[in-house]
Amino acid sequence: MFLNPQDVTKITSIGGGPIGVGWAAHFLARGFDVTLYLHDAAEIPTARAILDTAWISLAGLGIAPNASIERLSIVHDLEEAVSEAEFIQESAPERLEVKQALYRRLGEIVPEGVVIGSSTSGLTMTDIQAECPTPKRTVIGHPFNPPYLLPLVEIVGGRKTDPGTVSWAADFYRLAGKEPLVMKKEIPGFIATRLQEALWREALHMVANGEASPGDIDTALMYGPAPRMAVQGQCMAFHVACGAGGMATNLDQFGPALKLPWTRLTAPELTKELRDRMVDGCNEIAAGRGFEELAAKRDRQIVALLKAVRDAA
Amino acid sequence: MFLNPQDVTKITSIGGGPIGVGWAAHFLARGFDVTLYLHDAAEIPTARAILDTAWISLAGLGIAPNASIERLSIVHDLEEAVSEAEFIQESAPERLEVKQALYRRLGEIVPEGVVIGSSTSGLTMTDIQAECPTPKRTVIGHPFNPPYLLPLVEIVGGRKTDPGTVSWAADFYRLAGKEPLVMKKEIPGFIATRLQEALWREALHMVANGEASPGDIDTALMYGPAPRMAVQGQCMAFHVACGAGGMATNLDQFGPALKLPWTRLTAPELTKELRDRMVDGCNEIAAGRGFEELAAKRDRQIVALLKAVRDAA
Repeated sequence: MFLNPQDVTKITSIGGGPIGVGWAAHFLARGFDVTLYLHDAAEIPTARAILDTAWISLAGLGIAPNASIERLSIVHDLEEAVSEAEFIQESAPERLEVKQALYRRLGEIVPEGVVIGSSTSGLTMTDIQAECPTPKRTVIGHPFNPPYLLPLVEIVGGRKTDPGTVSWAADFYRLAGKEPLVMKKEIPGFIATRLQEALWREALHMVANGEASPGDIDTALMYGPAPRMAVQGQCMAFHVACGAGGMATNLDQFGPALKLPWTRLTAPELTKELRDRMVDGCNEIAAGRGFEELAAKRDRQIVALLKAVRDAA
Repeated sequence: MFLNPQDVTKITSIGGGPIGVGWAAHFLARGFDVTLYLHDAAEIPTARAILDTAWISLAGLGIAPNASIERLSIVHDLEEAVSEAEFIQESAPERLEVKQALYRRLGEIVPEGVVIGSSTSGLTMTDIQAECPTPKRTVIGHPFNPPYLLPLVEIVGGRKTDPGTVSWAADFYRLAGKEPLVMKKEIPGFIATRLQEALWREALHMVANGEASPGDIDTALMYGPAPRMAVQGQCMAFHVACGAGGMATNLDQFGPALKLPWTRLTAPELTKELRDRMVDGCNEIAAGRGFEELAAKRDRQIVALLKAVRDAA
């Protein structure tokens, strides 16, 4: 049904904002031919500026040997923009009626067997694909801003998406240098945004109550949990912090702390099933490595991170 | 009342766990004489192991010219341990009755004018100092694990704490190489833990509902928001992502998204007052720098962070 993911060489990115142009920059740096669809020629100067800025970072991270910023075409006719595409990354404005109309049209004009990924952060694919005549090949591929830097892409289909599209997208994004995360269910906000949003809403509550300023919030994050979260995530951070007992010790010993008013968010009931899922999940990530080895790696990476951030300031 | 913060040379760290010993390691690396109080000689091997591990990271980050791991004394008699101290960092077990009994005793035996900082992450100083005969010089100095790596120290007094103790502690911790954050109010979980806990509870909800595995949670964080949060915090991340309009654009445009079910945590009402606090706070942090400058710094630091974490894996 689809081209092999490793055979894709031509990508069309739809959208002139930081996400659409950021994606174009990323794909260019990985050696693809990229067509960037801009609604209007008036968007070109801004798009060029985003591209030039992104290229500095991409060069810093290392670009593919055959990559060139010159392999970009900017096109203002949608049909022309998608006519030779082997993958479409759509980053149109976040309004459902705009996306639905766009997918109705894309469904007709995008060549058969070409997957269409949406950068949407707030809509579901079930809603976006509602009027698309070829919904099976539509899927969400949600990046984090800036998309040319942060590796995460959250992938999930809508009700009419073919499961093969989801696995194709995961394979393709990984080959294209991203870190794909295939979601188990279509939930509002996906995974990363839900986590960030819970934190963000707690921050807004604190500012509203005079408990912290925006500066306090950012200081707390940058010098506290964030560097560790960037090298371990929060599950493994707790798993490793609890020594040999790991996540089991964390939950069995500190489980009652979930009842404490340490945030406005009420915790779920800590059932045996939830406990076991957390413990098993951490053991899977650990893959037999003991806490000493994991802690040593954590420390080595945090040291490198702190020095790098300091030196690049 | 107190010694000048810059004249402190002798510190006593109370506690043989990762926090107490981690603090000892940090202070040793900054050139202090450190007395480590361990309840029992049986704790020595574990403490030595934590210290040796910490020293690898501290050496990597850069230690003070006069610093030496040999400037550590291990003492099992509490009175002897504190007799020459010029600052006390207390990291005893997190049980209120243990802390209260300890502060009753410390209040008597710690030399006059010496500040006592507590590493507690879950108790308030108002409760801890309840039976202390000299509560004015007691204050919370809450580190993030591992305390020899993560710079944050959250500082807040209890009801009987002298305001001068809070400002002394902030000055002292900064001189000792930490990033102090003085809290505006005594709230459960302080600031960083509340933010982390909101995120953690959302993660538990997702695992409980089969929406994500622990591995999904960690992937989402490590490759998504965490690297950016480590260089900007969340307020400035949104401020800079919104271009010239900054946080005002974020709240005015995306404010309605606070009503969306993107987390289980209900957002506060986005009043004019809250909006202005957020906008003013971000403008203060920006200190006149435009979004292009801030975005360029963000990108430079994220590139350095990603390369450092990758190379140190």
